[in-house]
Amino acid sequence: MKFWNLQESDIDRIALGAGILGTGGGGSPYLGALMAKAQLRQGRRIRVVRPADLAPDSMVLALGGIGAPTVGIEKMDEGDEGIRVLRSIEALIGRRMDAVIADEIGGANGISPMMTAAKLDIPVVDADGMGRAFPEVQMTTFFINGHPSAPSALADASGNVLVVTEATSAEMLEKLMRAGTIAMGCTAHMCTAPMSGDFVRQFGVPHTLSQAWRLGDAVLAARAAKTDPVAAVLNLVGGTLLLQGKVVDIARKIEGGFVRGRMTIAGLGAFSGRSVEVDIQNEYLVAREDGRTLAMVPDLICMVDSETGRPIATEEQRYGLRVSVIAIPSPGLLRTERALASVGPRAFGYAFDFEPLGEPNAAEPVHAYVNDKQMERETLSAPVGAL
Amino acid sequence: MKFWNLQESDIDRIALGAGILGTGGGGSPYLGALMAKAQLRQGRRIRVVRPADLAPDSMVLALGGIGAPTVGIEKMDEGDEGIRVLRSIEALIGRRMDAVIADEIGGANGISPMMTAAKLDIPVVDADGMGRAFPEVQMTTFFINGHPSAPSALADASGNVLVVTEATSAEMLEKLMRAGTIAMGCTAHMCTAPMSGDFVRQFGVPHTLSQAWRLGDAVLAARAAKTDPVAAVLNLVGGTLLLQGKVVDIARKIEGGFVRGRMTIAGLGAFSGRSVEVDIQNEYLVAREDGRTLAMVPDLICMVDSETGRPIATEEQRYGLRVSVIAIPSPGLLRTERALASVGPRAFGYAFDFEPLGEPNAAEPVHAYVNDKQMERETLSAPVGAL
Repeated sequence: MKFWNLQESDIDRIALGAGILGTGGGGSPYLGALMAKAQLRQGRRIRVVRPADLAPDSMVLALGGIGAPTVGIEKMDEGDEGIRVLRSIEALIGRRMDAVIADEIGGANGISPMMTAAKLDIPVVDADGMGRAFPEVQMTTFFINGHPSAPSALADASGNVLVVTEATSAEMLEKLMRAGTIAMGCTAHMCTAPMSGDFVRQFGVPHTLSQAWRLGDAVLAARAAKTDPVAAVLNLVGGTLLLQGKVVDIARKIEGGFVRGRMTIAGLGAFSGRSVEVDIQNEYLVAREDGRTLAMVPDLICMVDSETGRPIATEEQRYGLRVSVIAIPSPGLLRTERALASVGPRAFGYAFDFEPLGEPNAAEPVHAYVNDKQMERETLSAPVGAL
Repeated sequence: MKFWNLQESDIDRIALGAGILGTGGGGSPYLGALMAKAQLRQGRRIRVVRPADLAPDSMVLALGGIGAPTVGIEKMDEGDEGIRVLRSIEALIGRRMDAVIADEIGGANGISPMMTAAKLDIPVVDADGMGRAFPEVQMTTFFINGHPSAPSALADASGNVLVVTEATSAEMLEKLMRAGTIAMGCTAHMCTAPMSGDFVRQFGVPHTLSQAWRLGDAVLAARAAKTDPVAAVLNLVGGTLLLQGKVVDIARKIEGGFVRGRMTIAGLGAFSGRSVEVDIQNEYLVAREDGRTLAMVPDLICMVDSETGRPIATEEQRYGLRVSVIAIPSPGLLRTERALASVGPRAFGYAFDFEPLGEPNAAEPVHAYVNDKQMERETLSAPVGAL
């Protein structure tokens, strides 16, 4: 099987790109990236496998953090949460997992499966269940396409582990997981029921680790060349710049285990005199200008620092930040009728239908896939080159 | 092994007595008793075994309902919840359960293990983990005496099942179970980690099914003889009559998955001019008169209809009810230093120490235990006679 053997520089790029794809949510990838790089320094490896290379009957476990990101940045991971949920599922079904995959590529969750992959030496799939971040468990392309809601597991940093062995729906799973997360202190790690390689090949959003890598690489390259990192992002993913300006108002609270709120960005420069309002439920959901909707879920609304291209999460927002509000088209798997019922505006309580912003976003794998032998050699010689 | 083979008349008596021992909580035993009697009518049997007759290495599972009783009377059990939690634990540890036991004898929970016992044809132990009802999971003599907090399971009427496979403490288990219960709609069934027969013999509150039966029998006998049912109860358990009067005020809300509140009973007859205030957290916790504490947890504060001796649960209380407020000494297992740390007044947030009301309450088994053969015969001929 061919793997992409991650180097520290890859993890930095993926963390940066996952932050952008997080659309404000998914938690900060900073700590997860540090932890993943520490694994490499300890001599472990983190291998990425293309979904197309998964054996159809292999067992893949989707992992991710759950909770309010505001809490996640203060109450840190212990590092073995992913292993604990994985082991609890293995014990229950009596079978080893062959690979892990991110529930969502966005934010910390794009990185967090790497800890488990490194420690257990199993690959991470270059795909995820959202192509971005969403606030609720049932909002993955896996559940949208009929994946069973149990057994799913939840673990916290202290050693508590909970397994949902039966859930009547993915929405009920979300309720149970959210309740458990709140009891665990508003941040935890979870896994959903194991999937076959075949299922992941069909319904995972493909090559989103690659896309995160590319986004991070584009921002770093622009910074190095002193060109505009926002333009580099827009160019790479066919995005739309909704506004550049200053955060002038932000109302944010933790409610029901989520970060919820609304913020206003007043235009500067070419956008002077304009103003955009953005709704938050862990992620940026809808962007409005003068009552007119500019962009909406499932399309990605991202905010980055206008100067550096650094993604700004909902929990980091504060008065005075200079931000660029970017809309990125969602992947096709989020735009089907079934998907929109779970992740379209109405699923978030809005009274309007989805209006797509441009052609669906599709990502290609990065070129760095090598066979096992070559990978070993490259690990010892030089880091995998930039795209 | 010797069993007490329950008849319908026994279930009626136990339900009545469990209602009294519920100290206002544990949920209404009415529906559970109907369901248990329906099991007998369908030809199943419900056998009660003395703790002393348990094999030391047998596996006993503690079962009970969890949630706000106010909800429990409207959102009914489906009947197989106990089987679902039991099966989920059996699957996890790879061993069959030999018997079930009530987490708490009080209220619905004194009856609810009977459904599982009847359907699986395994005995119910004549003991429980509280000798009464308490609002929280960790408040059993099992946890007080070091029983592990996992694996424990939770199931609702719709088919959702959750297993806590690791909990850092019994208090954390309570938090997780409570959160799950709220997500399930505020009422569910749970089991805690399997116990050895030896452990149950040491730390179960013994013969509380028998005590419930005796209380129910005493009330029924008094009603039949047109004598005072309240006096019959007091006489049987060495109780104290704190007040007889009328409910003149009740404030009650559902908060954090509990029924919480406070009520006032104004004295009538010999108690005229006096007034007692009672605090509620699912159960009656503390009774006060003019700022002076009359009775407190873990001693039992019970309210019964002054006319009929019918127990009145916290969720049934309303203005105008004629009630007798009774205090019953708690069993010795609730009065140890370790126990008081979990179930004494300070564990409920009060700033005073426990002052016991009389000698500890101890219950003897009823005489109706018969050997297996005789039991079969009796089942076919006549109901087990009253004490």
